[in-house]
Amino acid sequence: MTVGGASTTVGSGPADPFHTDGRYDLDALEGDLPAAVTAELADYLAGRRMDVLDVAEEFAEATDDLTRFVLAGGKRLRPTFAWWGWRAAGGLDHAATVLRAVSALELIQGCALVHDDLIDDSDTRRGEPTVHARWSSRHAGAAWAGDPTRFGAAVAILLGDVALAWADDMLHDAGLDRAAIARARPVWQAMRTEVLGGQFLDVAGHASSDSRPETALRISRYKTAAYTIERPLHLGAAIAGADDATVQALRHYGRDLGIAFQLRDDLLGVFGDPAVTGKPAGDDLREGKLTLLVALTRRHPDRETAAVVERTLGKPDLGTDDVAAAREALKALGVVDDVEQRIAELTASALDAVRGPDAPVLAPPAPERLADLAVAATRRAR
Amino acid sequence: MTVGGASTTVGSGPADPFHTDGRYDLDALEGDLPAAVTAELADYLAGRRMDVLDVAEEFAEATDDLTRFVLAGGKRLRPTFAWWGWRAAGGLDHAATVLRAVSALELIQGCALVHDDLIDDSDTRRGEPTVHARWSSRHAGAAWAGDPTRFGAAVAILLGDVALAWADDMLHDAGLDRAAIARARPVWQAMRTEVLGGQFLDVAGHASSDSRPETALRISRYKTAAYTIERPLHLGAAIAGADDATVQALRHYGRDLGIAFQLRDDLLGVFGDPAVTGKPAGDDLREGKLTLLVALTRRHPDRETAAVVERTLGKPDLGTDDVAAAREALKALGVVDDVEQRIAELTASALDAVRGPDAPVLAPPAPERLADLAVAATRRAR
Repeated sequence: MTVGGASTTVGSGPADPFHTDGRYDLDALEGDLPAAVTAELADYLAGRRMDVLDVAEEFAEATDDLTRFVLAGGKRLRPTFAWWGWRAAGGLDHAATVLRAVSALELIQGCALVHDDLIDDSDTRRGEPTVHARWSSRHAGAAWAGDPTRFGAAVAILLGDVALAWADDMLHDAGLDRAAIARARPVWQAMRTEVLGGQFLDVAGHASSDSRPETALRISRYKTAAYTIERPLHLGAAIAGADDATVQALRHYGRDLGIAFQLRDDLLGVFGDPAVTGKPAGDDLREGKLTLLVALTRRHPDRETAAVVERTLGKPDLGTDDVAAAREALKALGVVDDVEQRIAELTASALDAVRGPDAPVLAPPAPERLADLAVAATRRAR
Repeated sequence: MTVGGASTTVGSGPADPFHTDGRYDLDALEGDLPAAVTAELADYLAGRRMDVLDVAEEFAEATDDLTRFVLAGGKRLRPTFAWWGWRAAGGLDHAATVLRAVSALELIQGCALVHDDLIDDSDTRRGEPTVHARWSSRHAGAAWAGDPTRFGAAVAILLGDVALAWADDMLHDAGLDRAAIARARPVWQAMRTEVLGGQFLDVAGHASSDSRPETALRISRYKTAAYTIERPLHLGAAIAGADDATVQALRHYGRDLGIAFQLRDDLLGVFGDPAVTGKPAGDDLREGKLTLLVALTRRHPDRETAAVVERTLGKPDLGTDDVAAAREALKALGVVDDVEQRIAELTASALDAVRGPDAPVLAPPAPERLADLAVAATRRAR
């Protein structure tokens, strides 16, 4: 196997990482990691379809819907961070296997999104009907027996469970050696429990009207930061057999950048351009989401301006004018500046952890890529 | 390590199977496998509580509820069958580890029950409020924000996910050697996909009013037979490194007995004594459940008698008289005899697979115990 230099080929094709002649071009792969992750997912899910067909064709129709949902989606952030955690810790061999293993994170995300959309009763995601909404419409369209909403919910619960079970299966089927799996599992375990804990805190905080800034930050920490950045990096590093200093530096980066990422998300949830975000303007206000913006507003001494924001929260029929007024009020209160300031500080701290004078030596090009990812995560428009 | 004979001690205590002086008394353990499984679960879940507390105390309150639910429950059928699959294939060493590994099946069952109760909107299970019902009441009692029903559903979805994730973790943390895990995983994977497929077929069959006998039997096969008996036996045999003939015999037994078990359940769902089953009389009728009894009734030529049954299906306010009339009608149609006949044939076929002239040699006392379990599964009153 040749390593280093341009167009390095490492490992082999996705279908059978060790026993085919297919090879990956590492530079090409790293030039479009999201596409490479999607290809792994497509290949894996096509394989699982065989097992599903053994049970029943109708069940395959349902899991096909899950497959479409998983393949359609997103920025592949979690596998991308896991990949760079692995590369930062010196990972290079068996790239195809590692790519497949870290792609399994997108199936956990599949479960999280399908179940979250049901919990939030969201009708659309990425401009498409959500899983429960689609099955509910299908039930209504076919004039089936029972309540369409309950049917849609049932299918979404089961398909989310399938995604969660298959995430474990994909991690284990990737072909990692047993020592690498043994190192990866504690991280994988912690991450799954943490994200479910973060979701629980979100649901419970909402119900109990807990709007303390520390609650908002704790939800961000577990629901987003740990799950999206810190633990994926940790997982990749663990697969590579990283030393403790490397793991600590990557986790520090991940924790700080993860919170900054969520704070950017919070700002976009109020100030984002619908044409770019794909969500209605001020959607977080409409949902009454507990963000740090809201938490800071609630304890601001200027009650009158704060009330302008407050009265928009959790109002499903919020108009453009209301959203505009809330935006002005948030700016006037200084909470937008406050959040921007935190994003800047957290991003700087994250970068310092992997590139500062005390940072451990990370394998190139990981430090540069992690720096690029930090910018992408915190200066994005969607 | 002494093996064979009375009061054999094998392996060590549940907390640390290899490094403590605690030892299991194998005869005592096999004298009350359900209690041994519950002790393993209690120990494992106490350990996970530490991880959960790292996230948040409120989250620990929620997972404590899951723990109570899992520990309160049931006959521990799945770990019991897995245990005897392992013993049948000659398993004897590292009994504590294997006991812990197969106890993980009860966490899959925890997920299945919590999610199923939500899907079916059941208020009680084993005489206690279901998880979603309890959290819904708690929300209402505390006069929290939002809809209590939606809150209860959200918590139940998340706690079911926790159980499913922890099931995998418990299997992997049990301390099985890597070769045993590698043999166990394909079975574990197939089982999880099959049970979710069975649940999907149940939900979809109900919605599309598919009441063919073959549909009822297919649902039984995947939702119950494979998941409760066939795959647990297969899992245990795989852990022991069973040869193909042993695996095939155990799966044959499991498949046939599993269907027989479900058919007995169907009869109890209509004819069971509420004082013994813990469920209202004729509960399956009230739920409009598609059982083989119903499927056979629907295609029976005596439409008049069949109509007596038909009019009770899916009626929530069914009275004692209606249930009594449906029972008489089912007997008069002969479908009760038909189902009893199938139970007898399937049980005989199951027993033949493990004790008949062509059965492979299974390690004692497994054949006798499998015979006892077959009787217990098909001649029970609850």
